[in-house]
Amino acid sequence: MSRVGLGKNYEGQECSLARALELIGERWTFLVIRDAFYGVRRFGDFLAHLDMPRAVLSQRLQRLVEAGVMEKRRYQDSPPRDEYVLTEMGRDLWPALLALASWGERHLADGRPRRLFVHLGCGGHLTGSPVCPACGDQVPPESVEMRPGPGAESTREDPVSRALRRPHRLLEPLTEH
Amino acid sequence: MSRVGLGKNYEGQECSLARALELIGERWTFLVIRDAFYGVRRFGDFLAHLDMPRAVLSQRLQRLVEAGVMEKRRYQDSPPRDEYVLTEMGRDLWPALLALASWGERHLADGRPRRLFVHLGCGGHLTGSPVCPACGDQVPPESVEMRPGPGAESTREDPVSRALRRPHRLLEPLTEH
Repeated sequence: MSRVGLGKNYEGQECSLARALELIGERWTFLVIRDAFYGVRRFGDFLAHLDMPRAVLSQRLQRLVEAGVMEKRRYQDSPPRDEYVLTEMGRDLWPALLALASWGERHLADGRPRRLFVHLGCGGHLTGSPVCPACGDQVPPESVEMRPGPGAESTREDPVSRALRRPHRLLEPLTEH
Repeated sequence: MSRVGLGKNYEGQECSLARALELIGERWTFLVIRDAFYGVRRFGDFLAHLDMPRAVLSQRLQRLVEAGVMEKRRYQDSPPRDEYVLTEMGRDLWPALLALASWGERHLADGRPRRLFVHLGCGGHLTGSPVCPACGDQVPPESVEMRPGPGAESTREDPVSRALRRPHRLLEPLTEH
């Protein structure tokens, strides 16, 4: 992250939180990362699920790739098709994702969780932290199954929304190529 | 949080993370909250420390007060002066703040932490989570002393930046009225 990049928006904010926000605090960017944790990999699936303008999604993915948060992988040559997956740096956002989502569930929802994060090792339910309250393990996202919670109310019919009505292991591809 | 408010930007994103981001994912808003954890309370101090336009700061603080994240308190009547402090809902962002700041330190800085978060109970150093790695306690922000780390390089001369060059207990007012 260059000082020039920082200077654009947070000049003088020599703080690692400011740097993190410069990269992922933008409108939509964190939702792209959320969807990547859910297993979304294809441009068209991000687009259909997030309802964001094509050009904005393209620019956000490009930025995340340049910053090292996501990786662009060719999965088909003819016609050429790429998918986007979280790098290790991106997967390290897991605690931040859980913390923010949990705060939203607690303070901005109606008390009925929309999504449950279940530790596949022991069946414990994560809330707000990767530390499993049941067994005490630090749980990585690949050991978590996301299930619709009692507050789930999806009426969307895009492929991602439909797939997420069933339990799904995080980071596993959500739709078939 | 009304559905109308949500609809503006994240239409159809029935997710608590989306709701959280609609409120605090905006450019600058999380830095206002960070400064409030540091003990900044006065409009002029936020303004001097964050270098953001006066109208934008005013609008962000107003939004945070309306949403219940911050509270506006009259501390002087003549002339009238208000301060802004985190509510319980705002203080609940503590795990998210630590998680994001820690991610920034790990991936976007040079490896030398800019700020250290020390548990006053036992001297343990928090990194990324409110759970103290030394004693295992869940540490609330009011039990944390922030100290400049080896990567601190502040050259700013506003009152907040100067005060933060010394150890400071989180949430305690940073400057005198």
